[in-house]
Amino acid sequence: MMVEKFEPWDEIAVIGIGLQGASIAINARDRGLAKRIVVGDISKKNRDRALELGLCDAVTDDLAEAVRNADCVFVAVPLGAMASVGEAIGKALKSGSIVTDTGSTKQSVIRDIGPFIPSDVHFIPAHPIAGTEYSGPDAGFLTLFQDRWLILTPLPNTSNQALNRLRHFWEACGSLIEIMEPAHHDQVLAVTSHLPHLIAFTIVGTASDLEEHLMQEVIKFSASGFRDFTRIAASDPVMWRDVFLNNKEALLECSARLSEDLARLSRAIRWGEGDQIESLILRAREIRQALIDAKQV
Amino acid sequence: MMVEKFEPWDEIAVIGIGLQGASIAINARDRGLAKRIVVGDISKKNRDRALELGLCDAVTDDLAEAVRNADCVFVAVPLGAMASVGEAIGKALKSGSIVTDTGSTKQSVIRDIGPFIPSDVHFIPAHPIAGTEYSGPDAGFLTLFQDRWLILTPLPNTSNQALNRLRHFWEACGSLIEIMEPAHHDQVLAVTSHLPHLIAFTIVGTASDLEEHLMQEVIKFSASGFRDFTRIAASDPVMWRDVFLNNKEALLECSARLSEDLARLSRAIRWGEGDQIESLILRAREIRQALIDAKQV
Repeated sequence: MMVEKFEPWDEIAVIGIGLQGASIAINARDRGLAKRIVVGDISKKNRDRALELGLCDAVTDDLAEAVRNADCVFVAVPLGAMASVGEAIGKALKSGSIVTDTGSTKQSVIRDIGPFIPSDVHFIPAHPIAGTEYSGPDAGFLTLFQDRWLILTPLPNTSNQALNRLRHFWEACGSLIEIMEPAHHDQVLAVTSHLPHLIAFTIVGTASDLEEHLMQEVIKFSASGFRDFTRIAASDPVMWRDVFLNNKEALLECSARLSEDLARLSRAIRWGEGDQIESLILRAREIRQALIDAKQV
Repeated sequence: MMVEKFEPWDEIAVIGIGLQGASIAINARDRGLAKRIVVGDISKKNRDRALELGLCDAVTDDLAEAVRNADCVFVAVPLGAMASVGEAIGKALKSGSIVTDTGSTKQSVIRDIGPFIPSDVHFIPAHPIAGTEYSGPDAGFLTLFQDRWLILTPLPNTSNQALNRLRHFWEACGSLIEIMEPAHHDQVLAVTSHLPHLIAFTIVGTASDLEEHLMQEVIKFSASGFRDFTRIAASDPVMWRDVFLNNKEALLECSARLSEDLARLSRAIRWGEGDQIESLILRAREIRQALIDAKQV
C-alpha cells in the first residue's frame, strides 16, 4: 500500500485526552504530523497529566480557545459529550479546517456535532477500530493504530481534498483505511463490537450475583473460559454506556437475535437434542475458519 | 508446595488419545511416570497416529485388553462415551488399580462409569482444567497441565492411599490440586466454563446468520471484540455437545439467569436508562479487579 508523505499541519487540537486522544497526540508529536498540538479537556486532572506527559504544547479548559487556530480538530470524547463539544467549538472553528472524531458510532456523531459545523469547515466523522481496556491520558501509546482499521464515514458533500488529507494523516499513524456509509458502519460495529461487549458485561454481571462462596471459586477457576470475558468487560463504563445508548436500534436488533438463539440452544440442551447442539457448534467453527482464511487471527 | 517424587507405575492405560489423553501420555513418558503406556482407542486413525508420534508402547481397539494390566486407567473420551467405555473395561480392570478420567462434568461420569467399577478397584473422577481449542492426538503437549488446576472429586469411600497416588501423579505433571464435591464442581464449572462456551457458540452463530455482505465485514472488522469469542467457539463440537448435555441442570440455571440479565440490560438501552447501564458495567469491572487481586490474570 502506498503511504503519502504527510505535510504537517501547523496546529491541531485534540478535544478529550483519553486513550484515543493521547494516542493521536503521541502520533502527531513523534511522527511530526503537526507543528503544534493543543489539548482541550474539561478535566483538570487530565490537562495536568497531558502536560506532565509532554503530550502537547498547551492545554485549556476552554474548548473554543483550543480549536481557534487548529487546522484539524480531533474530538475524542465519549459519545454522550459530542453534542456539547460541538456546541462549544462550532463558532470558533477556523475557515477551511477539518473536524473529525473517534466515536464508536457514526450516525449519532453526525446528529450531535453536524448541526454546529459552519459551512466553510470540513466535517469528516471517523472511527479508529483500536483500543485497549485501559483509559485516560496515560493509556495512550504510539502504535495503538498500527495495522488497525480506521473507518471514515464522509458526508455526501465532503471535499475530496480534505478527505485525502485526513486519510493521509491516519495512514501516517499506521492505520488501514476503509470508507463506509455511516448507517452501515453502525450496523457492522453493532455485531463485531457492541454486541460482544454487551454480552461480556452481562455474563460477568450474572456471575457477580452468585453466592459469595461460589464467587470465590469462580475467580479461582476463571481460566476455563470466564476470564476471556472479564477482559472485555473491564472497558470504560462511560464510553460503553454511551455506545449502547447511541447505537440503540442496531444493537437491540442484534441482542434480540442473540436472545432467540440462546433460547433455542438452551431448549436443545433441556430436551437432549444432541444433533442440533452439535450442528450449532459446528456453525460457529466455520466462522472461526473464515477468520483464519481472512488472516484476521 | 511440596511435590513428592513419583514412583512410576509399571503400566498405565489411556483410553481415548485426543488432546487430554495425548498430553497425559506425553507427561507419563517424558517425566518417567509409567514404565509402559497402552492406548485404547476405537479410531484407527488415532491409534496409528499415537504410534507414529511415539506416544505409547502399544495400541489396541479392544478397550478391555488395553486396561488388563494397567495400574492406572485414564479415561479421556467425550462425556457421551463414558458409559460405553465403563461397560467395556469394567470386568477387565486389575484388582487394586485406579480408574480416573478427564471429563468436564463429574456427576455424569460417576453416574456413567461408577456402576461398572468392581469393588476392588479405586474409582477417582478428575478434571484437569486445561485445554486449547485444538483436538486429536497431535494436539497433546507436555506443559498442558503446568500450573493449571486439577480437580479431584473422590467418592466417600475412596482410599486415601489411592487418592494420594493419583494426586502425586498430577503434581508431577505440574498441576495444582483441588478436592471438591462432584455436584459443587459441576456448579462452579457451569459458570466459569460451560456458560462462557455456550454464549460464545451462540454469539458466533448469531453472526453467521447475517446477510452475506454484512458477514464479510464482520470478518474484516472482527478485532473489535468479536474475534475473542470465535477462539472459544472453535472448541471441539462433540466434546462440548456432551458437556452441555451432561451438566444440563446447572447450565440451564446459569443460562436462564443470563437471559434475564440480558433482557434487563437491553431494556435499559431501549429506554435510555444511562445510570442503570453504567452501574451494570461498573459491576463487571469489579469482578475483573477481583481476578487481578487473586492473580488470575
